[in-house]
Formats: sequence, C-alpha cells, structure tokens
Amino acid sequence: MFSHNKRLQYTVRISETNPGLANLLLEQFGGPQGELAAACRYFTQALGEDDPGRKDMLFDIATEELSHLEIIGTIVGMLNKGAKGRLAEGVEKEGDLYRSITGAGNDSHLTQVLYGGGPALINSAGVPWTAAYVDTIGEPTADLRSNIAAESRAKIVYERLINLTDDPGVKDALTFLMTREIAHQKSFEKALYAIEPNFPPGKLPGDPRFTSVYFRTSQGEPEVRGAWNEGERWNVVPLPQGAEAVDGGDGLATVALNELEAPAVEQMAARTASQPDMDPTTGAELGMGEDLDPVGDAGRLRGVPKTLED
Amino acid sequence: MFSHNKRLQYTVRISETNPGLANLLLEQFGGPQGELAAACRYFTQALGEDDPGRKDMLFDIATEELSHLEIIGTIVGMLNKGAKGRLAEGVEKEGDLYRSITGAGNDSHLTQVLYGGGPALINSAGVPWTAAYVDTIGEPTADLRSNIAAESRAKIVYERLINLTDDPGVKDALTFLMTREIAHQKSFEKALYAIEPNFPPGKLPGDPRFTSVYFRTSQGEPEVRGAWNEGERWNVVPLPQGAEAVDGGDGLATVALNELEAPAVEQMAARTASQPDMDPTTGAELGMGEDLDPVGDAGRLRGVPKTLED
Amino acid sequence: MFSHNKRLQYTVRISETNPGLANLLLEQFGGPQGELAAACRYFTQALGEDDPGRKDMLFDIATEELSHLEIIGTIVGMLNKGAKGRLAEGVEKEGDLYRSITGAGNDSHLTQVLYGGGPALINSAGVPWTAAYVDTIGEPTADLRSNIAAESRAKIVYERLINLTDDPGVKDALTFLMTREIAHQKSFEKALYAIEPNFPPGKLPGDPRFTSVYFRTSQGEPEVRGAWNEGERWNVVPLPQGAEAVDGGDGLATVALNELEAPAVEQMAARTASQPDMDPTTGAELGMGEDLDPVGDAGRLRGVPKTLED
Amino acid sequence: MFSHNKRLQYTVRISETNPGLANLLLEQFGGPQGELAAACRYFTQALGEDDPGRKDMLFDIATEELSHLEIIGTIVGMLNKGAKGRLAEGVEKEGDLYRSITGAGNDSHLTQVLYGGGPALINSAGVPWTAAYVDTIGEPTADLRSNIAAESRAKIVYERLINLTDDPGVKDALTFLMTREIAHQKSFEKALYAIEPNFPPGKLPGDPRFTSVYFRTSQGEPEVRGAWNEGERWNVVPLPQGAEAVDGGDGLATVALNELEAPAVEQMAARTASQPDMDPTTGAELGMGEDLDPVGDAGRLRGVPKTLED
Amino acid sequence: MFSHNKRLQYTVRISETNPGLANLLLEQFGGPQGELAAACRYFTQALGEDDPGRKDMLFDIATEELSHLEIIGTIVGMLNKGAKGRLAEGVEKEGDLYRSITGAGNDSHLTQVLYGGGPALINSAGVPWTAAYVDTIGEPTADLRSNIAAESRAKIVYERLINLTDDPGVKDALTFLMTREIAHQKSFEKALYAIEPNFPPGKLPGDPRFTSVYFRTSQGEPEVRGAWNEGERWNVVPLPQGAEAVDGGDGLATVALNELEAPAVEQMAARTASQPDMDPTTGAELGMGEDLDPVGDAGRLRGVPKTLED
Amino acid sequence: MFSHNKRLQYTVRISETNPGLANLLLEQFGGPQGELAAACRYFTQALGEDDPGRKDMLFDIATEELSHLEIIGTIVGMLNKGAKGRLAEGVEKEGDLYRSITGAGNDSHLTQVLYGGGPALINSAGVPWTAAYVDTIGEPTADLRSNIAAESRAKIVYERLINLTDDPGVKDALTFLMTREIAHQKSFEKALYAIEPNFPPGKLPGDPRFTSVYFRTSQGEPEVRGAWNEGERWNVVPLPQGAEAVDGGDGLATVALNELEAPAVEQMAARTASQPDMDPTTGAELGMGEDLDPVGDAGRLRGVPKTLED
Repeated sequence: MFSHNKRLQYTVRISETNPGLANLLLEQFGGPQGELAAACRYFTQALGEDDPGRKDMLFDIATEELSHLEIIGTIVGMLNKGAKGRLAEGVEKEGDLYRSITGAGNDSHLTQVLYGGGPALINSAGVPWTAAYVDTIGEPTADLRSNIAAESRAKIVYERLINLTDDPGVKDALTFLMTREIAHQKSFEKALYAIEPNFPPGKLPGDPRFTSVYFRTSQGEPEVRGAWNEGERWNVVPLPQGAEAVDGGDGLATVALNELEAPAVEQMAARTASQPDMDPTTGAELGMGEDLDPVGDAGRLRGVPKTLED
Repeated sequence: MFSHNKRLQYTVRISETNPGLANLLLEQFGGPQGELAAACRYFTQALGEDDPGRKDMLFDIATEELSHLEIIGTIVGMLNKGAKGRLAEGVEKEGDLYRSITGAGNDSHLTQVLYGGGPALINSAGVPWTAAYVDTIGEPTADLRSNIAAESRAKIVYERLINLTDDPGVKDALTFLMTREIAHQKSFEKALYAIEPNFPPGKLPGDPRFTSVYFRTSQGEPEVRGAWNEGERWNVVPLPQGAEAVDGGDGLATVALNELEAPAVEQMAARTASQPDMDPTTGAELGMGEDLDPVGDAGRLRGVPKTLED
Repeated sequence: MFSHNKRLQYTVRISETNPGLANLLLEQFGGPQGELAAACRYFTQALGEDDPGRKDMLFDIATEELSHLEIIGTIVGMLNKGAKGRLAEGVEKEGDLYRSITGAGNDSHLTQVLYGGGPALINSAGVPWTAAYVDTIGEPTADLRSNIAAESRAKIVYERLINLTDDPGVKDALTFLMTREIAHQKSFEKALYAIEPNFPPGKLPGDPRFTSVYFRTSQGEPEVRGAWNEGERWNVVPLPQGAEAVDGGDGLATVALNELEAPAVEQMAARTASQPDMDPTTGAELGMGEDLDPVGDAGRLRGVPKTLED
Repeated sequence: MFSHNKRLQYTVRISETNPGLANLLLEQFGGPQGELAAACRYFTQALGEDDPGRKDMLFDIATEELSHLEIIGTIVGMLNKGAKGRLAEGVEKEGDLYRSITGAGNDSHLTQVLYGGGPALINSAGVPWTAAYVDTIGEPTADLRSNIAAESRAKIVYERLINLTDDPGVKDALTFLMTREIAHQKSFEKALYAIEPNFPPGKLPGDPRFTSVYFRTSQGEPEVRGAWNEGERWNVVPLPQGAEAVDGGDGLATVALNELEAPAVEQMAARTASQPDMDPTTGAELGMGEDLDPVGDAGRLRGVPKTLED
Repeated sequence: MFSHNKRLQYTVRISETNPGLANLLLEQFGGPQGELAAACRYFTQALGEDDPGRKDMLFDIATEELSHLEIIGTIVGMLNKGAKGRLAEGVEKEGDLYRSITGAGNDSHLTQVLYGGGPALINSAGVPWTAAYVDTIGEPTADLRSNIAAESRAKIVYERLINLTDDPGVKDALTFLMTREIAHQKSFEKALYAIEPNFPPGKLPGDPRFTSVYFRTSQGEPEVRGAWNEGERWNVVPLPQGAEAVDGGDGLATVALNELEAPAVEQMAARTASQPDMDPTTGAELGMGEDLDPVGDAGRLRGVPKTLED
Repeated sequence: MFSHNKRLQYTVRISETNPGLANLLLEQFGGPQGELAAACRYFTQALGEDDPGRKDMLFDIATEELSHLEIIGTIVGMLNKGAKGRLAEGVEKEGDLYRSITGAGNDSHLTQVLYGGGPALINSAGVPWTAAYVDTIGEPTADLRSNIAAESRAKIVYERLINLTDDPGVKDALTFLMTREIAHQKSFEKALYAIEPNFPPGKLPGDPRFTSVYFRTSQGEPEVRGAWNEGERWNVVPLPQGAEAVDGGDGLATVALNELEAPAVEQMAARTASQPDMDPTTGAELGMGEDLDPVGDAGRLRGVPKTLED
C-alpha cells in the first residue's frame, strides 16, 4: 500500500508564471516518455514479478516515479497559476484574455480552456496519455531492456526541456529529474545482467541458419558498413535473390481448404472477378466534364499550367 | 524508393484454415510488438538519421520488417480464407455461420464481420494499431536502446505464439520470424556500442549528488537486495526522510505572481473556498431515503447483510 | 512524495487460478471506471487545488486509490499465475495450450499472448487505458460532481463483478474495494456542499429566460412527466415552434466577410456548385451491369427475392 | 518481399529549413489522408485479394506509396534539420531556443521536444497515426470505392499544402505526389468498373420498397432539390409521417423474455423506478446557497446581469 | 425517429470571421465536454432506459443537445468561412496564406489543412472525439450523477469561452448554450432524487466496517480537515498502520496452484532468477567509454558542470 | 434544430434475447462503418456545405442516419434486456451468471460488465467509437466520394450480419437498414456527378508527365494486367530504374542550412557518430552467459534443437 508526504521529493523554486513553458513540460507529465508512463511501467511489472529482489526494486522505482510525477505536475500547475485565475474569474477585457491564451504559440490554450490551468495527463500537443505507451510484456529479460530504453528516452526529453528554459528554479528541478533517470537506468542494467543468460530473451533458441545473417535489402551508393554487418560474425546476404525465398523454397503461401470452404471461396472469386480485356468507362471519366476527351492523349487533364508544360 | 517481389521472403505451408489462430497471429501484424511497429520504427529513424552507416542499417532492417509484415499478414489471410468465403457468400444456414464465427472463443468475430477475413492492422483484441507504439525520439543512443528492447519483446511474443500452435508450417514460419528478431537485436547492439560514449545518452551530465543514489521508497520484509542497489557503487537512501526534501530544502513549490495574476487567483480562491466548521447536508444524504437516519451511527447504510455483521 | 509498504491495504486469499475471471477484473484495473482512472483523477486535482483542506482530502483519496490499484492488480496477477507459467515455459502440448488460452470465452488470450499474464492497463476487452477517461477541468464545483459520479460508477462495476464470482476470497476483496467507493463518494459530497453556493457551478449566471425552460423535443405517446419538467418550477415548451428560433429570431446564422474573403468564397461556391435540372449518369449506374435498366422502375436492383416481393 | 533503393523516387531540392512548414507537411506523413494510410490500405488489401490482376495492382500502388512516404518524410526531416541540431546541442541561449520552438505558431514544438526533429507518424496537430484511418473491409466493390475516395482526399490535402508554401522545391515535390494520387484514382476507378456488376456492392439485393425512396427528414425553406431526389427515379417521402413507421407498423420494438429474465427485469425496474408526483429537494437546490429561495420564481439564479434582464 | 428543421434553435449573428476563435470553440463541438458527448450520453441512456418518464426526458434532452451541436458547429463554420475559401481557391500569394494559417497561434492550422475549414469532431487541440468520453454504465443512479457532473463541466467550459470572446453575437449564442446546461442539470438532479433511495447506488450494501472510515494516507503539516473527515460521522484512520492490513490480516495475497501450474511457475522463476551476490558488468558501463572508470567514485559521469558542483 | 418522434422509423420484432448477437450488432452502432459514423459524417458536411441543394440532402440523410442509429441501438438493448436484469439484480448463483456472461464466445462480457447491457458506442470488439473514422475534408468532390464509399462499406457489413442471424425480426430490420445504404449511395452518386467537372477533385491540375503513368513496382510472375494499366491510356514504367529518380534527377534530397544551424548539425553528427572499424563488445554478448563463446561460430545460440539442425 502507498502513503504520501505533502512535501515534494525535491524543492521547487520557480521565478514567474509561464503557461507556454507549462505546456512544453506536460511532455513529462502526460507524454509518452513522461513520469506517468514510467510509474505505470514499473508498477505493473512489480505486480507481476516473482523474483523477490527485482520485485522490490520495481516497487522502489515505481514509487519514486510517482513522486516525480508530483514534482513535474506541481511545476506545471505553478507556471499556469496566473492564467488559471485570470480565465476563471474573467476580470479582464475579453480581447486581452484571448490574446494571452493564444499568444504562447503552442497548445497552452487547451490547458486553459479545457483543463482550467491544471496539470492534465496529456502530452505537449494535447494528446491524452494512453497505456499504449507502456510496453511491458511480462518477461523480465525483455521488460528490463524496455526499462533501460525508457529511461534513456526520458533522460533525453528532460535534456531538451532544460535547454529550452532560462528559469533557474525550473532548470534545477528538471536536472534532478533527469539525473534520476540516469540512476534508474543503471539499476535496470544491473538487474538485466544479473539474469544469466539473458540473451536471446526467453526460452526458444533461434534457427541457426538465420541468427547471424544480415539481409542487405536496401541498395545504392554509398554502402557504409559497420559493426552490425561486418566481420566474421555476420553472413551478409543481398535481397532479393531472384526467384527464391531465403529458405530455398518458392516463396509462396499455401493452405488446404475443406469441402465447405472451397466452393464458397470459388464463388466469391467468381462474383468479384475482374473482367479481362475490357476498358470500362469509369466514374472519373464521367466526372471529367463534357468538353474533355477522357480517352484522349494521356495526362491531359483539364488544362495544364504553363510552368509545368515547358 | 521501394520495390516489391511477389515471392515471400520465406515459404509458408499451412495445413488448414483456422480463424481462431489467425486472430492470435494478428498480434504480430497490427499489435504493439508486431511487424508494422517494427517497420515504422526503423523507417522513421532511417529518415532522420545522419550517420551514413546507421542510416543504411536502418533502411535494411526496416525493409526486411516490411517483408515480415507481408509474411505474417499472408498467414493470417490464409488461415481466414475459408471463413471469409463462407460469410461473404452466405451459402450456409445462418445458425451455422453464427456458431462458427463465435466459436473460436476469441476476437475472431471482428476479423470476420468488420474486416471480411482480411488481415487488419489490429492486435488480437481488435485494438487498431497506433503510432503511440513507436517510441522513436531522434537521439541515436536512446533510439538504439529502444530498438534493442523492441526486438526482445517481439522475440518473446513470437515464442508464445510458437508454443500455441501445432500446425508445423505455421510453426516453421514463426520460427523464422522469431529468429530474425534475434539477428536484428544483435545488429542494434553493435550499432549502439559503436557510439562512444553512449551512456548517459545525450549530452548533459547528471547532477553527481544523485546519479548513484538508490531511494528505498518501498518498505517491508523481506528486503532483498541485488546488484542494482548493493556495493560501493550505490548510496542507498530511505524515503521519506521526515521533514526534508532530498535536496535539503523544505520540499515546497513556490512561484511569484504578477499584479494582474495575484488578485485573480485570490478571487478564485475565495469564490471556491471550502467553508470551515460546517457539516452540510449532502445530496447523498438526501438520496438515502426517508426512513434512514443519515447522520446516525456511522456506517449504517440501508441494512447490512448477516454475513458481514457477524 | 510517495512511499510504499509491501503489504497490501487488504489481505487477499484467492482459491484457485482463473484467467477468465482475471480478464473481467481488468475492468477495475485499466478500465474507464477502474482504480487507475480514480487515482489519476484525484491526484491531478490535488496538484491543481488551492484550498488546503480539499487538497489534503484529494491526496488522501488519490493515495488510497493507488493502494486499491495494487490490490486489484495483485488479484489479476494471481488469477493468471498458472497460465503465465504454462505459456512462458511451453511445457505442454501446443494444442492444450491453445485450447486453454481460447477457452475462457473472453479476451483472456490477449493478457496471455501480449502481456504474458501480467496485469495490463487495459479494460476487459483489451482497450488500453486512456486519460480521455479523466474528466477533471480545474473548477472544484464541477470536479467534485465528477468525482461523486465516478465513485458511483466504480461502485456499480464492483457490484457486477461481485455478482459474477463465487471465489470467496475474491468476493471479499472486491467487497472491500466497493465499500471504499461508497465512503469516498460521501467525502466528495461533503466537500461539494461545503462550497457555498455551488450551483450553478462557476461564476457566470445563466440567461434567466432559459434557466427553467424544458424543451419538449421528443413527441409521441405516452408522455410521462416527472419532477424534471413538472410543477411551477418549469416552463415546458414544445419544439419545433414552426418558423421561429427560441429567441424569437429567424434561426439563421450570419457573418460578415471581408473583401479578401468574399470573392474567394464565391469562387469556391461556383467551382463546386451542383448543376440544377440535370440527371447525370453516375458511377453506380455504370456499375449495375449492362443487362440492367438503371432508369427503370424504382427499386429493381438485380433481382428481388421472393420473400420481399410478396 | 520488399527491397529498397537509397535514391528517392523523386528528387527533392529544398531552399531552406522551416520547422513550421515541416509541421504542416506531417499531415501527409502520419495524418489520416497521408502516405502511411495509403500504403497500409493497399498493402492489406493486396494481402487479402484473390483476383490476380487486382492483387498485382494493389502491390504496385502500395509499394509506390511507401516510396511517397519516404519522400514526404525526407522533406519533413530536411525542413527540421537545423532545429534538430540546435535543440540537441543546446549551443544557444535558452530564451532563443524557446522562442524559436514556439514561434512557428503551430505544433512544431512537439516535433522538436518529443521527436527530436525527426519525422513522426503524427498529423499536423500531433495526433498519432491510427489504423482506425484504414477503412478496408475485404470486399473489392467496397474497398475500391474507399480507395477512390482516399485518393481524392489525399489529392486535396496536397493541393492545400501546395497553396501554402512558396519554396519552389517543396512545391515541385508536392506537385509530383499530388499528381500520383490522380493517377492512382484513375487505376482504382478502372478496377472497380472492371467488376460487373459492382452496384449494389456485395451479394444481397435491397428491399425494393426502399431502394429508391428519398426520406425528406429536414424541413424548412428553401427546399432545393437536385438529381439526388428528383425525377422518376425517386419516391420522395416526408418524415415523420405521424403515427406510423415507414413499414406501416407501429414503430415499436418488442422482444420476448424467458422465465429467468422477466422477473429480473421487473425487479430492476422496480428498484430504479422514478417516483411519480413527487418534487424532491435536490443537491442543486442545496447548492444554491442559504440566501436564495430555491423554489422561488423560475430562473432566478444568483443575480441576473442587467444586460440580460431588459 | 428524428426530424430536422433548417432553422437553428437559436439565432446566431457573428460580427466577423475569426479562425483562431473557431479553433477554441471546437472544444464544445468535438471536445470531451462538448455537445456531441452530451447528445451521445443521453441518447444511449434513453435507448437503454426502461422507466417511461426518464426515457422521455433523456430523449428530450438528447435531441436538444443535437440542436446545440448544430449551433456550435454552425458558428465554427461561419468563423472559418473566409479562411476556407482562401485556402481552397489559392488566390493569394502562398506566403500570405501560410502566415494567415499559422498566425492564429493555436491549432487552427489543422482545421484549415486537414478539414478544409469545416467543423470537425475534434477538440481545440485536434484530438478526435472518442466514445471514451461517454461514461454511461446502464444504472440510473450512477448515470444521472454522471449527467449532473457532465452538465457542470460543460457549463464551465462555455463560461471560459464567453470570457475569451468579444464578439457580441458569439457571446450571446454561447450564453444561451451555457444556460441550457444549467437547466439540464436541474432536470437530471430532479430525476436522480425522484429515485428513492438512490444512495449508495445499486443494490449491494457496503461492508459496514469501512463505509465511514477515512484513511489519512497523506501526511504533513498543515493538516486541514473539513466536513469530509470531521465529526461523528467519520472514523479517521492513519495509514500505514505498520505490519497490518486494514482487515487485520497480513496484507499478503495468496492463491493455490494446481499440479499443472506449479512446476511451470517454478521453472519460469528459475529461468529468470536474479543471481545473488553478483556485480555484473552492464551495457551502460560498456557505454561509458574507455577513458572512464565505470566502477570509480559514485556519480562521476563524464564531467560535472561547475554550477552543480558548488 | 432537431425533433424526435418516439416511434422508430421501422418496426422491430425480435424473437428472443441474445447477448452474443447484440455484441456483433454493435458493429453498426459504434463501429467504424456504423450509423453514428454515418450521421456524424453527413451532419458535419451539412454544416460546412454552401450549396443549398446539397446542404438539404446532407441534412436529410444525416437525420435519417440518426433514426437508424436509434433502430440498431434499440435492437442491441432488446437483445441484452435479459442479461442486463440478471446481472444487475444478481438473483442467480454467481457461477451461472459467470458462465452466461462468458459463454457467448465474443466480447459480450464487456457490454454486460462495463455498460450494464446498454448499447455502447463501441464496435463488436469493444473499441470506443472515434471521430478518426470520419474522413470529411471539406471539399465536396472528395467528400461525396467518401460518402459513396462509406455507404458501400455499411451495406456490406449489414449483409454479413444478415447472413449470421436466424431471428426473422432482426433479419427484417437489418434488411431495411441495408437497403437504405443503397438508396443513400445512389443519392450521393447523383450529387457527385451533378458537379461538373468533378475529376480531378479540387482545382490544381496534375503534372501531365505523371498523370497517366503506371509504375510497376512489384515484380514477379505471373503479371496480370487489367484496365488499370493497359491500353493507350497508360504509360507503364518499371521501377526501380537504376540510378535515376523518375524526374531524371539524382533522387537525392538537399537543403541549405544557415550559419546558426550548420555548426549545431555538425556537432550533433560528431557526438553521435558511429565509430568505424570497431567490433565493440555489446550488452547482448554479455548476456549470452559465461560458458558461451560470443564471438564463436555464427548462429550458435544456446543449443539448437535437433529438428532445426538437420
């Protein structure tokens, strides 16, 4: 069970309100790389985890992420505090309010009009948070890699926000939050490598014919190689290889139909068959207008502008 | 630019139609860990990448994922081929069709009724694919970690599907696809470690006071530690620490309001203030009915069942 | 900031695993009326709230909802525990696993295949949780009403789940969770009525011509009235009232266009005007086939079945 | 299977970076009428198609749309190239970066902060692409019409973007892409009309009593008619026709309940019945405040402003 | 069945076009608190309702909300009328069009580029309307509370929009729409209290041990109490209570596994166990670069900036 | 403005309740091809339309679609009537209720548990309706084509549902609804062709070099041609054409960077460059376990099963 302490994990000293900046910070409140995503990711993993040590770690970090969600949400609320009061009380001329609400040049208007200046679980474009952002699948060797990646992404988004603001109090709090992503990534790395072996993830081995093949599917100069397809580790194979699939078969797909299915499939095919050797008049041709010759010289569609004809 | 070869990358030989299995396989067609997600992830990264070698690699793998999307979609279509014809042509008794469509015990009915048996870009529960699944953020040291994690997850979902089916042709094709996830993970690992340094991702360093702190926010026995919070690397700090934030401050958030904002905020606070020392009658009390004493002994709500009172 | 205790708020004793029931319980984990929605709703309100007493209450209840999220997620994980192991380890015949995964008759297959048996932030149909479920708008007299309604809905969904399960341990835990929704509703009711006045919400009064009008827009016998449109309080007005809008005006909408806009609008209107007095041949008519008379007697479309003609 | 050529299908020469324009162009990358939607639409149809000629066509056009997705994504990346570097490296004063990121006046900030300047699968408002945009249903006579419509829409969105930009290189590339939509529409039209008959789509005929009826459900002057409800083809029927449904029945819905259901339904009705002849005090009335007469003259709600009373 | 009258329910007189304002008004067209949500909410409840009086009321109000949807959509269309024509016809210099489309400082660009200036079912940030906004659950005592809350929210959003615009015609129409929300709330209040009892909603009583308990889960000064946790009604209990769950049990969760499940669960646990007493080298350490001492003094990560070290 | 008549447009006589069938019918209530989508599509077009005749038509058909939404929703409610009462009143043994709710073999459980048996705005898999289904873009020549396609799709989904049910009353009502889609399609076809010219849609012509080119991007035998790429109309061009883009250029994309951007871009490239000629040890190699030779013979990953080695 959870408990809450009314102090923040980190002290926040903001210079002045700034709804436009608040809008950008929503990215780490209700955005895909934000703190709600982090908290949900680790919390649901903790619930499903059976290894006692990892379970502890996941609860520890999940709980801390909730405290980070509180910090970032508090900052958003503070930056919006003035705008919230002004719109709710309507004490100014309408035109002034309108200009202040649209002047931020980003989606701050949504925070004001729909959410009344409160921190909303949206990203900086107003897209509601969705659990589609949480990629937990219930296998530790995969989930820990997902966590490592998630911490890396969150670190970077904080870095971008730090680069954008010149309010020293906001910068300081964001630096704390960014730093914790680094620490969490380190913990998840340790937890991953404490499972041996952890690669390939899961239990089934790959088919050895294809685990070290690199298919060169994209052609054209210059072809720059690297550690990912160079050396004795790799068997580089160009694609397509003409008439063969990589397994040496014909690359076709086949299935047997039973006696109920076969006639129905045939009947549908006959009903929707394309008539060969036919040049039907189409709706588009009807739509080209009466003074046009729809079957005329290719490409002549309703007068072509000079600039394109020359 | 892309081109297409009408042969599949891998030959597919399915024993018999099976719409229920088709429904499960949709997970790797339009699900979060599926091939469309993979193709979109690497393709958008390739477009934004400036390092020529990584750009090549991303196009190579993105293109291969499109070929995998084709394989899994082809299998789905084959497994549904009979159901599709039967429903479209309506040649059987309605009850039989109804039973066949709901008998699979999963969401196969959606594939039949809405999508006509074709492979749809949904997961196995019918949720449409969304780009919210793609977590690319445009920084290689984060994106490559995301790719490594994504390949791990995809490998596991294929493994689960392989465990579920006893059709040897489907099993064989799924094993090929699973194997390629292993190979791709290996390439992305190489590409990540070919960037030096790659940790912490990005450019800004963390605040050294907090990069190696582990906050113990979840209490209770047993506390099992591991490499993620043990050893000289880590400074383990329990939480909450009473009246202080981790920075030594008071854990409060402050902001200055200007002369336009302060009075509006005050006015809103006054308008919506909660009246102290008041026990207002509420709608819920009105709603408890006339023969009840709403202010009576706590917890008496409309008769309590025996089993709970004893 | 938050802290966590590894004990649940309420002890859970489940008789046996049951992935089908787990699937239904997801409704209160990641569904619209579930505990994540509740926690997010109150937590974001707490962050934006300025009244110190209400802020405390919102944090208290938000934190408790997190503990409830933990309880329901733990139950889901427990009910899935066996299924999770069986699929991950693949120790049985594939057909048996396939049957067990699709035999629950609901969306349990998604929990197994995609989420590995862990509690996922989805509803019982597999739809990912979305912050679109959270209706907080930052005005206490509206938000408290939203909270009252949300608690009512959550209470009912728990009631339905209790009616469905015969596992006494699950029933007991669900009854606890349901009861807390009642207690929370009572608190929110008190908090609403402690704001005076609280109706109409907000600051602007309504137009007195229309605050007590009831428009009878739906006609037909029997017309059953009730407290919502009967008595001296109400002025019942039928609709439509012929040629007049309810304000006595002509019910039209007008706007002035400037000299830049007017000609562009005219030009667009001319370009896309519908030609009067014309019966154009259409694509549909082309598509009816050559042996059909498309302008023939109305309704003759490709042979009419007996049962409809008589 | 697919292969890729590192040259674009069309050469792109952009004058200068412009993140605001990049944001608008995302509409055709990850928007509903964009190239990913097109590619997915035709590719999934190709997989499900059984007619060999149409299958070829669908693969041809799907593959070309992937090449278009690459062109538009490349343009977006190019237009964002400078902004990406500036934010990632943080080499300028924060205020300058903040102004440059919010100065575009649209959702460009999302592309920078969340996606690092890379092309993201979102529309110009930041909404992630969803397969809900793909309306394929697996019946060629419907799907081809959907394709025709989709090409029309894509053509128009390109036209709007062309009208907005004055960069000749962008204009030129967009014109190529727009032109291809015209060509694709022509192909799909041919394919539709090569199926005979193709109207009505599917197999079941309509009920001849209603195939040529036009219900006039919207009244008021002026009533302007057109080819869609005029002439001998049409039987125009006004609605509502008083006490009758259009089938001549009573317009009611009925169902039989079995002996298990009937008493449960009755019991629920009794439990939730509205009490007749009752004017209950409500929560809203409690909430109007003590100095108000809640049952007083209708519409007097907390002081009415002058301008509305006269 | 429905019919339509071409006059609006309320006359609309707009001064001049204003696409930026149109964008904000979309909030009440396709936003979560807007008129489509209202109409859908009451209409679906009406369909499911069995009480004849409430069914009438719900149809009456649902139908009126459709008329309001028409009013707000008409205003949006009018405010966009000029922008629509200008972009469609492209009669101006591209730069002028570009500036006019991005100059509104909000998401108006989406309305122009994607929706051609027509009213779209999106909120003011461009998020498509979703039925996830509709919280109907089919129990009148819950649904009526949801309706009361929904009307409160809609009233407030109208109030904010009224505060923003200085166009007297728009202000007048918005005031009408806002007023009707007040009237509807009054009706729903009456309908709720005409059900006796209506609290707790539904049929099952709560567990009397917990219906009047208030858990104090959030600690810290000042603790401000109110009617929601004060007085004889309430039993205030602090949390956490040390080693006990609130039921007096141990706060653990237990389940029995059958003989098929137990070994599979054990096998999975063994396979993914975390190795104790191990300090594995991790990918992050590999990634710190060769000139770094990864096991060195805690927190030294690639150079620490001056401002943080002091 | 709208008004409502309590009779349905078409009389509905259902034989018996059937929650499983109700679930399938939701497809036409809240699914992508359903009646809400239709009503919203035409209603929003009507609001934006300036041609008086088309505006009338769109309102006529939009209003009728609302009446259809009412019919299909009423049928869903009727089929669920018994299940609703049984679950709400809980008068049976829990096991019986559980079996009845999961026995339908589709997503009916969601309708019962979450929506209380009422018609919900979801598709048959439980996915909430989204305005992403509405493809209106505000240009009549595109929107009418979208409407034609939408009617075709709706017709087909009704046809599939008719094929599934053997309840004559449901079949009859569905046939009426299906028929009206045919009639509406006919109207929209007339409206499209009454605009002259209507192809290409919009105002800008295509580039004549590419309007009649068919790119053959998908290779392989058999190549079956048809009206869409055969005859004098078409110029069939194979792809890729080696080293050239279709415009004759080099197929590259270029942009000029200004003096602020160029150094930042260079700096980012240097920071994230991939090191050439390096074979870094990776996390995956660490994760393969100590008794493995990670650089050993390619593809040997943790023991290969017999069946794959031979």
